Amino acid sequence: MRQHQRHLLDEPHHDGSALFVAPGQPGLGDRIPVRVRVPRGYGATEVFLRVDRDGNPLYFPARLDRETEHEQWFATELPVDNSRVHYRWLLAGSAGAPQWLTARGVADHEVTDAGDFRVTTYSPGPDWMLDTVGYQIFPDRFARSDAATKRELPAWARAAAWDDDPASGYDSISQVFGGDLAGIAEHIDYLNDLGVNLVYLTPFFPSQSAHRYDATTFDQVDPLLGGDDALARLSDALHRAGIRLIGDLTTNHTGWMHEWFKTARSERSSVERGFYYWKDDLPIPLEPWMRSFSDQWGGSWPAKPSDLELDYIPWLGVPSLPKLNWNSQELKRRMLDGPDSVVGRYLEAPFAMDGWRIDVANMTGRYAADDHHDAVARLTRATVDACNDGTGMLIAEHFFDAARDLDGDGWQAVMNYSGFIRPAWTWLTRADTNLRFLDAPVPIPRRSGAAVARTARHFASLVPWSTTLRQWNMLGSHDTPRIATVTGDRAVTELGAAWLFTYPGIPAFFAGDEGGAVGSNGENARTTMPWEQIAAGGGIRWDARVHDTWRSLVTLRRNHEALSRGGLRWVVTDDDALVYLRETATERILVVLTRAAWSGLTLPKWLSAAKPEQLFAGHAASVPSLLGTETGWELRSDATAVGIWLLH
Amino acid sequence: MRQHQRHLLDEPHHDGSALFVAPGQPGLGDRIPVRVRVPRGYGATEVFLRVDRDGNPLYFPARLDRETEHEQWFATELPVDNSRVHYRWLLAGSAGAPQWLTARGVADHEVTDAGDFRVTTYSPGPDWMLDTVGYQIFPDRFARSDAATKRELPAWARAAAWDDDPASGYDSISQVFGGDLAGIAEHIDYLNDLGVNLVYLTPFFPSQSAHRYDATTFDQVDPLLGGDDALARLSDALHRAGIRLIGDLTTNHTGWMHEWFKTARSERSSVERGFYYWKDDLPIPLEPWMRSFSDQWGGSWPAKPSDLELDYIPWLGVPSLPKLNWNSQELKRRMLDGPDSVVGRYLEAPFAMDGWRIDVANMTGRYAADDHHDAVARLTRATVDACNDGTGMLIAEHFFDAARDLDGDGWQAVMNYSGFIRPAWTWLTRADTNLRFLDAPVPIPRRSGAAVARTARHFASLVPWSTTLRQWNMLGSHDTPRIATVTGDRAVTELGAAWLFTYPGIPAFFAGDEGGAVGSNGENARTTMPWEQIAAGGGIRWDARVHDTWRSLVTLRRNHEALSRGGLRWVVTDDDALVYLRETATERILVVLTRAAWSGLTLPKWLSAAKPEQLFAGHAASVPSLLGTETGWELRSDATAVGIWLLH
Repeated sequence: MRQHQRHLLDEPHHDGSALFVAPGQPGLGDRIPVRVRVPRGYGATEVFLRVDRDGNPLYFPARLDRETEHEQWFATELPVDNSRVHYRWLLAGSAGAPQWLTARGVADHEVTDAGDFRVTTYSPGPDWMLDTVGYQIFPDRFARSDAATKRELPAWARAAAWDDDPASGYDSISQVFGGDLAGIAEHIDYLNDLGVNLVYLTPFFPSQSAHRYDATTFDQVDPLLGGDDALARLSDALHRAGIRLIGDLTTNHTGWMHEWFKTARSERSSVERGFYYWKDDLPIPLEPWMRSFSDQWGGSWPAKPSDLELDYIPWLGVPSLPKLNWNSQELKRRMLDGPDSVVGRYLEAPFAMDGWRIDVANMTGRYAADDHHDAVARLTRATVDACNDGTGMLIAEHFFDAARDLDGDGWQAVMNYSGFIRPAWTWLTRADTNLRFLDAPVPIPRRSGAAVARTARHFASLVPWSTTLRQWNMLGSHDTPRIATVTGDRAVTELGAAWLFTYPGIPAFFAGDEGGAVGSNGENARTTMPWEQIAAGGGIRWDARVHDTWRSLVTLRRNHEALSRGGLRWVVTDDDALVYLRETATERILVVLTRAAWSGLTLPKWLSAAKPEQLFAGHAASVPSLLGTETGWELRSDATAVGIWLLH
Repeated sequence: MRQHQRHLLDEPHHDGSALFVAPGQPGLGDRIPVRVRVPRGYGATEVFLRVDRDGNPLYFPARLDRETEHEQWFATELPVDNSRVHYRWLLAGSAGAPQWLTARGVADHEVTDAGDFRVTTYSPGPDWMLDTVGYQIFPDRFARSDAATKRELPAWARAAAWDDDPASGYDSISQVFGGDLAGIAEHIDYLNDLGVNLVYLTPFFPSQSAHRYDATTFDQVDPLLGGDDALARLSDALHRAGIRLIGDLTTNHTGWMHEWFKTARSERSSVERGFYYWKDDLPIPLEPWMRSFSDQWGGSWPAKPSDLELDYIPWLGVPSLPKLNWNSQELKRRMLDGPDSVVGRYLEAPFAMDGWRIDVANMTGRYAADDHHDAVARLTRATVDACNDGTGMLIAEHFFDAARDLDGDGWQAVMNYSGFIRPAWTWLTRADTNLRFLDAPVPIPRRSGAAVARTARHFASLVPWSTTLRQWNMLGSHDTPRIATVTGDRAVTELGAAWLFTYPGIPAFFAGDEGGAVGSNGENARTTMPWEQIAAGGGIRWDARVHDTWRSLVTLRRNHEALSRGGLRWVVTDDDALVYLRETATERILVVLTRAAWSGLTLPKWLSAAKPEQLFAGHAASVPSLLGTETGWELRSDATAVGIWLLH
């Protein structure tokens, strides 16, 4: 592992940012200028670019392009002769065996392709994604319009008072607080003040649950939320305020009360029959799956052993969620294909949404020997690209290794559980937590900074840099505990927020995080927004200092190109300290996070010609000390601390 | 890096061998018993199997199945609910954060899927592959029958005397020594005595070169080799001697004098026109490719700048090798599909070959935005499976990361350049070599044992264990320098041979290696077999001691199931020492390779209850010392040494 007092500025570096790769969307046959930065004294005298072409690597010698007192830049051209290109650098010199430089860093052994840098000829998604700060709203819990308070609840629902605690587990499904779309529209000023410029709405289709992932139809917006008109009005109001809007669609399953599923069950000869999987056709035992899922839910699900006797295949053994079967061409047509499909309809007027988040994308189309995932992703993408002036956003829920699912012509990016939430949580978690580590049957592990940075680098290496900049990064979602509960410490939560807003990818958060919301699981963390306390400047469920911190971080993010587009260079990955640079040609920002007191080190003098300019001060975390000395910039920290400096 | 005096027997272990995974070909829906071995005192109290199902991991708790004084075995069942399943182990305990155990070893950070253990429902290839020792023959250079000496050479050929040195570079193409298929048949006794049981013939189609990778037709065997009859007779004779036979087919290109290409050029409306790529249709610049290839060949290729003006797309810029275009359905039909296709025809009577090696498989079907690789591989596989009683072998040339190309339903395995030759060469090479490192523009690097084992483990982790056992391992081929020249040292070459014959995968070698053949590049290493010297018991081109060593290693390999089927457990990966175990339930073999004197370490007593039985002694390398003491088995080496012991 890394030793104390060591920084990584003496390692060669390359990433996909404009300092290293000429910007712009490459086309087939293009030659892109690329560069690599090698510290002086590193000993690399021969530098080659290794590029895969048609399954075979080519090597291009890089020329010494520029030299400073402390580093050398080698340059050559990257030929983009396939739709997907991967490349790495070979550094050879007089001393020692040649080394590889990949997106995972320097290796002294032969490496597989998994860590290669990547470029594709597919659009990575609209440019506006780079300037986005995302805000997740769970419609039932954000705000209630007057109309909402007057609507009658359906039979399956149990009404909750706005200040009630959200339930956990099975009970969470029927607990309805009654938020609606008009309620969101009434708080656009709040969103504008906070600085977020994209709202991600969890599902708005009619269903039989508070979460609405069990749609009963895709043909209309839930009347309980105000119906189609309310969505059109919300979209319009948000757009007028400069805020974009995306929806949430289940391509993996529907609800069991979905009109298609009802037809499929009652009419064996119906075309809808082919939209689902039927147990008679596919002898894959459900049992281990059901058991695993049941374990996860404390044995409460499936409700009865007889659920094992279902005649259809439910998703993850949950009877209310029959899995969609993408062998059906008619399903593709209705759901995905073109402006009249479900995907297309809500992107066009009057809804004019700016894109979709796709639920359970990682499992969509995958069952037994079937794998229609890529076909679904590509067709969805084609429709998103065809509608709404071709500037739509398409991100996928994905808790795991998304390498194979982010091939370029499908989802643009994923909810970055693996590349952001996992590393963040494993560094920020309290040591004695009993919170479950997402899908894993163990508490969140607390790991060293080195292990955490390695996790982040390995997952980031799986996708092109242009995708990294568009990954949907969060510290938690409607499916997880709240970050405040994960850390159990206000200062450490500030570390997390500072990390989120200074890291490559779209910073996004679940409504309430900005006021210190708590919750220990994906259900009881779906808290309502305490508008009265917010108006009053704070209360038991709203911490105005937290709000001030998040608001200032949103502003910081939106004001600095280095944060939205700059390269990422790890400087320190110590047990208790993570330090990185975000860099463009004109701006260099240093981010220092220490989860505990840290003895520190001296960074080289050249890093900043003048006194670093402090860009952030939190309410709970302290600021590390960064002092100029004869030999360099002396960095250390006495406590949990966040430092964000503009270097000059 | 690893410290001296440390062994890895204190790390948990799992691989796909029968000790850990119940043997047999799994089908969809199967539940396979699996186990993991955890050293006592490791601290794992909770062990889970993490299995991907439909793109989502499930966790199954493993129960303590068996316990000995020094280790614990945890067991559970692996559900095989998709065609391709990947899994890993989660080891949690009272001390420290949970760790992952993958095919790359133990990790203390979150890991991507790339290192996961793998299982598929596809047949990995026939069982007989596991008992195979392969022998590569380049027909022009093995042996000349009387008939061959009387055949008239075509105009393009320059006759060489049998004892001439093979030329390098461009001149190698036309230099014909005149070996033929009857010549091979005359030396079956030699092959039987050596112990090899599969002959891999490089191409036998008519062509305009000594290497014959530029076929002019696939419809007959080159008359210069004796024609169709000679192949049928050779196949029959080999089979009667218990030796299998595979051929070599170019699916990436043909020669420019191929009958299809001639038609394609002369008749624009011909169906053959669609078999190739035409420059007018595809504006991908050839130039960087040509330059790279030209650099590799010392600027001698392409012969003239005007070659850049070709109207078709040649492979790697070599004008004589037009690239095949697999958009053509007719090409698929003629070349791949069914018993009447090229692939099928030579597997059926009277040729009855046992399979194919596919040339340049990694680039086959890949060009610009096209990627037909998988379609070609699958169709070829289907034909191989349909012909010759369904026990055919299908391996692919692949110098690089073959992860995406070994998906289960295409090639069964690859020529294992990345997983075997690269690690072997980078450990065995002389330090001051100027031999080029395969495709890379640097001399072969000399790396530490730790780096080398990491290379081997990373590449092995990309494929299922059943594929690892079928990978075609070599120390060199007709496309590389000879291993004797790579090492420049007889003792170190013995290390290489011992590694080859004791490692998972099919051990295979290029005719002549067993007599100490030398050669510094892929052309001048295509030496003839010096039959007179062989008969005389040695000579300047034949070392009988080397032959004795290889022959004894072939015998050793064929006599021990642990070597052909046993698990692989790394024990030491030190700078100058590599130690591993090959294990079945009934046999445990310890392999010790030291490329220099090595201070050694003490292995635990339990490793062998009785005195280890030495299975091998070479002529050039010494044998390490392995002595029983109070505390264990003391291992060390004073020189370049090979130790192979049966433990009891």
